[in-house]
Amino acid sequence: MSETITDHIGQLFSRPVFESLLKRRFFFTESFEIYRTSSGFKGDNRGLFDYGPPGCALQANIVDIWRKHFVLEEDMLELDCTAITPEDVFKTSGHVDRFADWMCKDPAKGEYLRADHLVENVLRARLDGDRIARGIESDRPNDAASSPDGTKKDKTKVKEVKPIKLSDSAVKEYEEILAQIDNYDGEALGRLIKRLDIRNPDGNNEVLEPKLFNLMFKSTVGPSAAAPVYLRPETAQGQFLNFRKMLEYNNNTMPFASASVGKSYRNEISPRAGLLRVREFLMAEIEHFVDPDNGKKHERFENVQHLELPFLDQSTQLSGQTTAKYLSLGKAVEKNIVNNETLGYFLGRIYQFLIKIGIDQSKLRFRQHLANEMAHYACDCWDAELLTTSGWVECVGCADRSAYDLTVHAGRTGQRLTVQEPLPEPIQIEKLEAILDKKKLGPKFRKDARAVESAISALSQDALERLSPVLEKNGEILIRVADLSGGDGTVAIGKDLLNIKRVSKIENTREYTPNVIEPSFGIGRILYSLLEHVYWSRPSDAARVVGINSGLSISLEANINVQVLSLPPSVAPTKVLLVPLSSHQSFRPIIKNLSSQLRSLGISNRIDDSNASIGKRYARNDELGTPFGITVDFDTVKDSTITLRERDTTKQVRGTTEEIISTVKRLVDGVENWEQTLCRLPVFT
Amino acid sequence: MSETITDHIGQLFSRPVFESLLKRRFFFTESFEIYRTSSGFKGDNRGLFDYGPPGCALQANIVDIWRKHFVLEEDMLELDCTAITPEDVFKTSGHVDRFADWMCKDPAKGEYLRADHLVENVLRARLDGDRIARGIESDRPNDAASSPDGTKKDKTKVKEVKPIKLSDSAVKEYEEILAQIDNYDGEALGRLIKRLDIRNPDGNNEVLEPKLFNLMFKSTVGPSAAAPVYLRPETAQGQFLNFRKMLEYNNNTMPFASASVGKSYRNEISPRAGLLRVREFLMAEIEHFVDPDNGKKHERFENVQHLELPFLDQSTQLSGQTTAKYLSLGKAVEKNIVNNETLGYFLGRIYQFLIKIGIDQSKLRFRQHLANEMAHYACDCWDAELLTTSGWVECVGCADRSAYDLTVHAGRTGQRLTVQEPLPEPIQIEKLEAILDKKKLGPKFRKDARAVESAISALSQDALERLSPVLEKNGEILIRVADLSGGDGTVAIGKDLLNIKRVSKIENTREYTPNVIEPSFGIGRILYSLLEHVYWSRPSDAARVVGINSGLSISLEANINVQVLSLPPSVAPTKVLLVPLSSHQSFRPIIKNLSSQLRSLGISNRIDDSNASIGKRYARNDELGTPFGITVDFDTVKDSTITLRERDTTKQVRGTTEEIISTVKRLVDGVENWEQTLCRLPVFT
Repeated sequence: MSETITDHIGQLFSRPVFESLLKRRFFFTESFEIYRTSSGFKGDNRGLFDYGPPGCALQANIVDIWRKHFVLEEDMLELDCTAITPEDVFKTSGHVDRFADWMCKDPAKGEYLRADHLVENVLRARLDGDRIARGIESDRPNDAASSPDGTKKDKTKVKEVKPIKLSDSAVKEYEEILAQIDNYDGEALGRLIKRLDIRNPDGNNEVLEPKLFNLMFKSTVGPSAAAPVYLRPETAQGQFLNFRKMLEYNNNTMPFASASVGKSYRNEISPRAGLLRVREFLMAEIEHFVDPDNGKKHERFENVQHLELPFLDQSTQLSGQTTAKYLSLGKAVEKNIVNNETLGYFLGRIYQFLIKIGIDQSKLRFRQHLANEMAHYACDCWDAELLTTSGWVECVGCADRSAYDLTVHAGRTGQRLTVQEPLPEPIQIEKLEAILDKKKLGPKFRKDARAVESAISALSQDALERLSPVLEKNGEILIRVADLSGGDGTVAIGKDLLNIKRVSKIENTREYTPNVIEPSFGIGRILYSLLEHVYWSRPSDAARVVGINSGLSISLEANINVQVLSLPPSVAPTKVLLVPLSSHQSFRPIIKNLSSQLRSLGISNRIDDSNASIGKRYARNDELGTPFGITVDFDTVKDSTITLRERDTTKQVRGTTEEIISTVKRLVDGVENWEQTLCRLPVFT
Repeated sequence: MSETITDHIGQLFSRPVFESLLKRRFFFTESFEIYRTSSGFKGDNRGLFDYGPPGCALQANIVDIWRKHFVLEEDMLELDCTAITPEDVFKTSGHVDRFADWMCKDPAKGEYLRADHLVENVLRARLDGDRIARGIESDRPNDAASSPDGTKKDKTKVKEVKPIKLSDSAVKEYEEILAQIDNYDGEALGRLIKRLDIRNPDGNNEVLEPKLFNLMFKSTVGPSAAAPVYLRPETAQGQFLNFRKMLEYNNNTMPFASASVGKSYRNEISPRAGLLRVREFLMAEIEHFVDPDNGKKHERFENVQHLELPFLDQSTQLSGQTTAKYLSLGKAVEKNIVNNETLGYFLGRIYQFLIKIGIDQSKLRFRQHLANEMAHYACDCWDAELLTTSGWVECVGCADRSAYDLTVHAGRTGQRLTVQEPLPEPIQIEKLEAILDKKKLGPKFRKDARAVESAISALSQDALERLSPVLEKNGEILIRVADLSGGDGTVAIGKDLLNIKRVSKIENTREYTPNVIEPSFGIGRILYSLLEHVYWSRPSDAARVVGINSGLSISLEANINVQVLSLPPSVAPTKVLLVPLSSHQSFRPIIKNLSSQLRSLGISNRIDDSNASIGKRYARNDELGTPFGITVDFDTVKDSTITLRERDTTKQVRGTTEEIISTVKRLVDGVENWEQTLCRLPVFT
């Protein structure tokens, strides 16, 4: 990492000042805050946040644009599935066994630390210490480790960096480890911790071997409490389980995509500061089902192939580099950096979406997952990462889940989760068939007979090819059966029961399991990163005119900058602020009328008729990201003209009520920009 | 109950036919359906449903209208709070102790039955049996007990009603019990079960005494699993906990309301069929904070006072009656049937909302809760109930929670959840003050000293008035302290530590705890009831022209009625169906162009270019509730005219593309109705 975070006018970004703005304006807050500080409050409730009115509106606007950009424009099938999910489903999907992080216990403190974060933070601190010892300035994002609220800090963070000189080879080794930190499993992390003597920064105790901790919240259903359930850690499984119904709803035509927007839950070991690592979060996920046999082409790929995206691929990372290279999507697919057109198409659409809501494109990159970092279901995965004061943050994942999920659920339930397509003309094929002697099966397996039978009938052609010679040679084969009366297990089936033979058949249809490309959006992370990207601090009027003022006013006012959130009008929580010049009676009906006119055009607005000065009222709304302001003054009462102010330039124009309202509508709809307005209407000073 | 459910053309409502339509068109489905039928699937996963594309869109449209009707029009502060909530919060709110239902175990079967449902269903079956014995026709809603899927039935339902003659006094007693079934607590239900020999209908076993079962899902947070949490059973608590931040955000002005839309979770003992009693559901809740001292007036009450609503109040129910009486809201508040204007205002707004989304006003009533039925936090509550084939269903609750929640959370956390208002002029008041000797407090209570101190300082004036003479007389008082080191408990505080004395003070501000009026909407129940209300079955064209056809076609086609969901355009999942006359090449670009024109106007549309006949394609979309259809034919290619069809009348008009598109826009926006369109544009046959 070589970035220092600045705002768009080049000022150093101060995270504490920024976070205090978000808190003051109630974008979000820690949940149950009044309880956290009360005496006797027990428990680990970090990583849970509530959105206040502006945060809630911003979130709703982002989701609304997401729906239009993806669900409507691409005709996706939206589903709303339950978060509560039976254990069976997540056993099949692999989440019960593998949706887990490695954690180390500090036995002296009784604390649990995420193993990869521990290694990462301790090595980073050592490198920082080395730079201090060598007299090199740090090049890490400023404020990355600081947070106004000490309780929210990552426990593995090293609080005080001590100067220590490292050998050149150690520096090189640490940097290589950090570049692929996501590539280590628990055993490898354990070896690193031992070899490099990595300890809990808080107290310097040794930690125990890394252990797996499952990240799903568990509960039970019903009064008997016999049925264990989990809260979903992703919305995807509900979509896979409804695959057949969706295919039918889509008149049995492929490809198609489903989509879901909803809360997911992950029992993180140590939630980070703010919205970046939380335990309950809003996700927007797409599952695009595609025929794997045509190279996963996408019919609208030509619409995005010209886009130049910053790619950071696997091989670059494994060479210890972290700089992304720009390449057109067309080239990236051609060179097989991105595996296929459908994956590439969605990377392009993700890019367009992020730019549309106001993400700074210089703080965006697409990073490919390393092999060990990949979720257990994925065969390729790219993350859209956004640069924040916490470094590069994964905000959108775009994974190729291949046929993994549909295959495992079909195997477990015995349901066909496949597509049958009529062939242009019938073909003769050779295939292996498994024929069971059902008369013998019943007496041998009794109540498990049905389970064994469905396990056999679920065997793929590949499996049969593999098993056929084994059966021939050994006289029996071993089959894994998911739901025997005594639990999961393996049964032996002999030649007397089973015959695998090659048959010749005429086929009129082709049957295949679709592959899945999954773009998955963490709305909270996108929202937080966006707020950092659009935040800046504007020297106030007072400070700007300081030259002509007395020395006293310099010291009093020079530091009172106005903080601004330059949110695009489309996502801003409120579009227009309505301010009467004073509390004079005659302004009330005019303001009320303006408000209802704007509302009927679907433009959200807020009245501020408090006693604060006009400047203060505008400053308050610059902090809320309100892009436009309308002032009503005594001239309005006479001639119905009003003033329109724009947040970023603070320039104003004047016009009749009709002119200004239609201008606001054009600005909010994106049909006109502010420069055009400045040319069209008289500037007001 | 004396209703028989019919659709709007008077045909008897068939629930199995209706439910199979909802399933076929994928409005919703049981979650993990492919698992439920698979062998070896364990667990009680009833009461969990997924919404498919039309259900999801219908839900989104209902929520969108709700937001406009309440949040925007009334300037409410919307919050999005977490579902995961620490145990402490629900201990304070009373949910850990009291958010529970009474259940009886059938020890022979190992089944749990909800006690009130058991009593209700067994007594209803006896009354039905009596009617059969007396030769009286049943007057209960048809199909109430039946469901296409046997597994979803309420376990307490009596499957086969046997004719038994009851005494007249028994009939009268049973009817009185049923009219106030929600008024019994566990002990009373237990006595009824014993006295009337009520047994599990499934097997006729005796059941055990009713026991409380808490309805919240429990889990733990973090790797230490030491922190118990619950999934919220309502969104309300998050809103109460953020009261102070919201008051600040609202510039410290009262009254104001907050609102939340989100999932809540209730671990129901025995979920009912369909969407009416589920374990995970979407709620939309409003908390309106109001000054209790001005009679809870509402400044916009005059806007709703003329509305005539059907009220079923407490006294009517206690007299054994179930017929609602129409009364204007103004009269209802005047006569104190509805306690105050704010409660009345929201009943009116709820009514307007329900009518707006298409609820049949003849199947709507407002029922007041009986004393024992009321939630533990409520001092008055009215339900908007909708009539369905399952009887009257509570869909919106409107409770007066008084100052209950803010008071208990303030007491537990020691935070001020009050409003301070400047008085018009300072007043001299007498009040009791509790003065602690802090020097003695520390040594006596050690680490509990702070908890004791905050319990004392949270005592209200009322409490001090009560405790002062006790302290005088006994030399000590007992105080409940919520968070002692050894858990909750009571401590004795003597005169040596505490002095309660009357002081005289000049006060410039008035401090009060706001009261809360809470309209709470179960979106899933509203959605299901709405679908029942707009459903009907139209004799098909084939059946209508049967007279001029051969006998053969009568027998083949007479029964093929078209099922229609007459959803208002504002809530319909899709607004316009686009159908090309055939698969002819020339139609494709026209249809595509129409689709994108409609989309740019924000009008959702769907293309059906399948090979099915036009009639079949329309029938399919009548089942989906799509209000309008546009047909493109060979004349369109020549002169750009298209046909517009309306779902309920099946009448069509013809016009130019521009005419028809602007007509659709007016119809969808509600600016024009179909009768007006029929007058304006030439009818097409």
